Amino acid sequence: MGTWPERVSLREVGPRDGLQNEAPVPTDAKVRLLDLLPGTGLRRIEAVSFVHPRAIPQMADAEEVWARARKHPDVRYSALVPNLKGAQRAIAAGFTELEMVVSASDTHNRKNVNRSTAESLDDIAGVVQHVHDAGGTLEVIVSTSFGCPYEGEVPTSRVLDVVRRAVADGADRIAFGDTTGVATPGRVAALVDGYLATHAGTPFLLHFHNTRGTALANILTAMEHGATEFDASVGGLGGCPYAPGASGNVATEEVVHMLEDMGVATGVDLEALLEVARYAQDVVGHELPSAVLKAGPRTVTVPA
Amino acid sequence: MGTWPERVSLREVGPRDGLQNEAPVPTDAKVRLLDLLPGTGLRRIEAVSFVHPRAIPQMADAEEVWARARKHPDVRYSALVPNLKGAQRAIAAGFTELEMVVSASDTHNRKNVNRSTAESLDDIAGVVQHVHDAGGTLEVIVSTSFGCPYEGEVPTSRVLDVVRRAVADGADRIAFGDTTGVATPGRVAALVDGYLATHAGTPFLLHFHNTRGTALANILTAMEHGATEFDASVGGLGGCPYAPGASGNVATEEVVHMLEDMGVATGVDLEALLEVARYAQDVVGHELPSAVLKAGPRTVTVPA
Repeated sequence: MGTWPERVSLREVGPRDGLQNEAPVPTDAKVRLLDLLPGTGLRRIEAVSFVHPRAIPQMADAEEVWARARKHPDVRYSALVPNLKGAQRAIAAGFTELEMVVSASDTHNRKNVNRSTAESLDDIAGVVQHVHDAGGTLEVIVSTSFGCPYEGEVPTSRVLDVVRRAVADGADRIAFGDTTGVATPGRVAALVDGYLATHAGTPFLLHFHNTRGTALANILTAMEHGATEFDASVGGLGGCPYAPGASGNVATEEVVHMLEDMGVATGVDLEALLEVARYAQDVVGHELPSAVLKAGPRTVTVPA
Repeated sequence: MGTWPERVSLREVGPRDGLQNEAPVPTDAKVRLLDLLPGTGLRRIEAVSFVHPRAIPQMADAEEVWARARKHPDVRYSALVPNLKGAQRAIAAGFTELEMVVSASDTHNRKNVNRSTAESLDDIAGVVQHVHDAGGTLEVIVSTSFGCPYEGEVPTSRVLDVVRRAVADGADRIAFGDTTGVATPGRVAALVDGYLATHAGTPFLLHFHNTRGTALANILTAMEHGATEFDASVGGLGGCPYAPGASGNVATEEVVHMLEDMGVATGVDLEALLEVARYAQDVVGHELPSAVLKAGPRTVTVPA
């Protein structure tokens, strides 16, 4: 096992992945959340997705949200797209950093988009072409990278097969999604090692859910094996669609709180981030799962 | 950083540390919890504490609980004692494995027992003598080992000073308590390395709280630095007295779930443990914080 990196790059996914998995919130609140986040020091934000409004009503106002949001000049904003049509919408809206999802598990992919993983992979080259022609980049997010809610085990070799095809077809970046929070450190080590042995030239990111409490341990192991990019969601926005009441996305505050205390720089101001987490909690109107939001940072003391 | 051990030894603290920090529950329920735990494979259980009933009404029935509990022949049971009087009660009740707490932080120690850390350390030799004369062993638990809720930072050097004195005065074992869940992996690595450099001959254990989500990451780091013994509480029984609504003790299910999937043997059957966690949740009458209790193990799938 290796050492810890001096710094990591966090991508905040609360505005998109988080809010997409909460009950719909007003457009104004989405814009406000996007406007608040850069003040925390976060420099990558997944802003919206361009999906069919019947499929994901939470993102029906994506164009309006993005048009009204202040774009911070130092922030990399990204948008999720399901297909070529979504990519066209994202580019028309001004995005240059796009993401597209494919599940390593066939059953999960069919449930999501009604086709096999292989059929979804066949789309990537066309989307890449369109995005590159527009001067943008495409990240392929491999969901169910550590296990599938329907099939159970997803072998690392299958995940790496999906990666191989995506990279061959022009993907600029890869992300591994722990869609239902089933990753544990041994699986993380195996996937990161396997990836770096074959695709060290392509940037990669890990997206962990804290559904079973392992997200921070997984990030720790991933760093020790060479990973430096992670998704996280302010307040832990998002929940878990497969286990009602359980946590989904790891909370950005928990990641920042742990890493900064370890001497791994995130560039994020924890107090400012907690302010935004409290705003996010007000917006969704229920308690968010972030432990640091509940308990406060480790530096908080009580009067003797 | 090292590798992961083949196996670890978990001590279940739900019946004592857990229930001591919940609203009082009936004696019958305490006995039943103690009777259920050995069936999970757990082989170390902190059963009760012998403290003054006015200070800790939750443990006022310690003698009765222990007298009525079935003693599994393969389980090491332990009891917490605050002082010589408590040690005498514990030994009279039949315990041979005793624990005594001292805070590394003076202010926390004064809040707990109205005296300085140095004054508490002066008691250890006398208690050790009494326990050894009775054929037992004494573990010294160093609480606030990673930070104090009143003073904030607690230097590793101060924690190791407390250890040095406890070992010199005859302590058989040392435990490090992350009393308010402020440990992070860098601090864990520093303390474990510092301990092993000076006291490698004395067994030691780590007691983490998951108040800020870091408990599993801390256990991971501790293992990588040579630790193999950990406390955990079924269901996450216990809460955090300093941050109402926040988590306290790391849940035994979360530890077992992660470690077993990493190939680190715990000897515990997760399904059996979850049954006991559900019982514990019924007993306290509120939702327990264990993420694996909420979401189920990673192996649970949903119909496609």
